[in-house]
Amino acid sequence: MSRDPDCIFCRIVSGEIPCHKVYENEHGLAFLDVGPLADGHLLWIPREHVVALDDLTESQAADLCRPLPRLGRAMRDVLPAEGYNVLQNNGRVAGQEVMHLHFHLIPRTQGDGLGYRWHPGRYGPGRAEALVAALGGALGG
Amino acid sequence: MSRDPDCIFCRIVSGEIPCHKVYENEHGLAFLDVGPLADGHLLWIPREHVVALDDLTESQAADLCRPLPRLGRAMRDVLPAEGYNVLQNNGRVAGQEVMHLHFHLIPRTQGDGLGYRWHPGRYGPGRAEALVAALGGALGG
Repeated sequence: MSRDPDCIFCRIVSGEIPCHKVYENEHGLAFLDVGPLADGHLLWIPREHVVALDDLTESQAADLCRPLPRLGRAMRDVLPAEGYNVLQNNGRVAGQEVMHLHFHLIPRTQGDGLGYRWHPGRYGPGRAEALVAALGGALGG
Repeated sequence: MSRDPDCIFCRIVSGEIPCHKVYENEHGLAFLDVGPLADGHLLWIPREHVVALDDLTESQAADLCRPLPRLGRAMRDVLPAEGYNVLQNNGRVAGQEVMHLHFHLIPRTQGDGLGYRWHPGRYGPGRAEALVAALGGALGG
């Protein structure tokens, strides 16, 4: 299993640094974020050191995401959460601060002031079609 | 397969409403968000009508999440994306507007002004331990 001795999440996985763990399986570990955006904000991380979602194989992604429904359900059942965001940031530009893949599960309640900044745009003439050609081509679509 | 005739995403899956599709497999469909937060903003949705992540079985979650690395990689390879956010909102309170499960893949570049509102807190004495007991209990941990 790949491990980076300087990575804080690898050190949490190994037990070298403590965490408030709520769930684990053979692929990953769920624990409380030490800087919670909301009460019960969880992190779900792979045991293996990988930086970004696109560093996973498809099989690893499937294994890693398998318990996400269970974590979401626990949030609804246990917390006063009316809903939750799953957020996964890839790259510093995207807000990733620890360079070990992690999913945030952020419980949401009315008026909490959280959420993603939402300023939708529109595509100009031909741009959507160009993106379909480029992305669809890369994706073998 | 479960389908809601009033659901706009079910109508996209069935082909009744057009979309700018970039990828599909037996479990889901990826297409351009019509109100993009950034150029190339994608949605990845299950063919089946489910509302929230916690409505999936673990096996369905695994199947649905399998192509996420491929979608992320295409964003990096094709767009001028230095990174990307994966965002999945559960419940109106969490910003879910279409009540059919979907993952946003949002390309990120320097200075784009996007991202999640980030105001971390701290747990008071005993609160983290109480959450571990409650969430860990619900999760069989």
